[in-house]
Amino acid sequence: MLRKDDLENGYHIWQDTDLFCFGIDAVLLAHFPDIRNGERIVDLGTGFAPIPLIMRAAARDAGKDIRISALEIGERAAALAARSVEENGLAGDIEIKRGDIKEAAELYPAASFSLVVSNPPYIRRGSGILGGDPEKAAARAEVSCTFRDVAAAASYLLPVKGRFAFIHRPSRLPEIMVELRRVHLEPKRMRMIHPFRGSEASMVLIEAVKCGGPELKTEPPLVVSEDDGSYTLDVLRIYGKA
Amino acid sequence: MLRKDDLENGYHIWQDTDLFCFGIDAVLLAHFPDIRNGERIVDLGTGFAPIPLIMRAAARDAGKDIRISALEIGERAAALAARSVEENGLAGDIEIKRGDIKEAAELYPAASFSLVVSNPPYIRRGSGILGGDPEKAAARAEVSCTFRDVAAAASYLLPVKGRFAFIHRPSRLPEIMVELRRVHLEPKRMRMIHPFRGSEASMVLIEAVKCGGPELKTEPPLVVSEDDGSYTLDVLRIYGKA
Repeated sequence: MLRKDDLENGYHIWQDTDLFCFGIDAVLLAHFPDIRNGERIVDLGTGFAPIPLIMRAAARDAGKDIRISALEIGERAAALAARSVEENGLAGDIEIKRGDIKEAAELYPAASFSLVVSNPPYIRRGSGILGGDPEKAAARAEVSCTFRDVAAAASYLLPVKGRFAFIHRPSRLPEIMVELRRVHLEPKRMRMIHPFRGSEASMVLIEAVKCGGPELKTEPPLVVSEDDGSYTLDVLRIYGKA
Repeated sequence: MLRKDDLENGYHIWQDTDLFCFGIDAVLLAHFPDIRNGERIVDLGTGFAPIPLIMRAAARDAGKDIRISALEIGERAAALAARSVEENGLAGDIEIKRGDIKEAAELYPAASFSLVVSNPPYIRRGSGILGGDPEKAAARAEVSCTFRDVAAAASYLLPVKGRFAFIHRPSRLPEIMVELRRVHLEPKRMRMIHPFRGSEASMVLIEAVKCGGPELKTEPPLVVSEDDGSYTLDVLRIYGKA
């Protein structure tokens, strides 16, 4: 089902609930990197483009000018993303590009972005059977690309000192570290996301720097919900509601 | 200066304050692994043997029988560790062995322990100049062995499914993950230690399993101190004082 949601930042987003809906992970990631004026950003696997829409609004509010290319392999997601961008009057700021992360080298010149962001599929290839809609499955599991593919594309798209910010499952952290280093992306900032105080981490935000020196900062953890299920103050601040 | 400290668990420990004194990292590590009855444990780089003395007392209180070999390259540290073990009547339970972690294969048979623990030097080889006493320097920086050496020794000393529990600086996490995987030690549990709520992590506890499957659990973070500098309830519990 098609659904139009107000992002409460001046923009709206079209989503197809039969495919997927963006979640808190996209919101947390969109606010994780420190955005610089004039930045050229690419979002690998943008889905309905929530990250570009949120980043663009945050940059606007901070008086910064950014341009974002949003890459999406899924035909229906890319079409809806383009519709949202068009209707929000952002065609000059956000470009929706249909294509495969694995073909980044055919789609973009090398080192053509200062920041790569990605909210990739979390589920390891081969670790479960995913039936149903292939476009839906590809958003959740590594059907069309693996983390290795995403890291390789990020490394190709960044110059030395360029940043790669992404969100993933902490259960895959060892593999993530190995794959980042394989392509000369050095993790420099990390933040664990815990659903509640006292629970295991469910997500991790990481920023890696191309050819960066070896020194990782682990920021204070982010707790999503109070025991009663309401958002914590830290999360409300990220949503601009506190 | 020689100093005798009461560990408040029935044992005492001799330390030479001109060399170093054990800190909270040793205490946290000693309580991190889930100790099993009959376990054969080796502590790589034991210093004055705080970890074996704390683990032995905790196992005794839990009605578990464990045996620990404590390896130390420093002559003065090993001598004082042996003195503490002797005076505490633990000669049958804790063996102090003077030797080099890099020569683990000459010192012990392969796969001869179920659990390896280590509180290794934190400072990366080559990242600073350490003058003064060489035995003191070797406890803090990777003078006599690197994390790669410690991981290689741990992997050699463990059978399949054996555990390697250690504490280190989170700034070195990417390298740690790469080095562990290189020797088939898969990180399975991780806990970040933050000095205060809202501060970056200063230490990380990790338990890896020899030839384990790829799935890391990130436990709730441990905060050491309240804003007024007193220990948090979580830390007081670990010290057995709450």
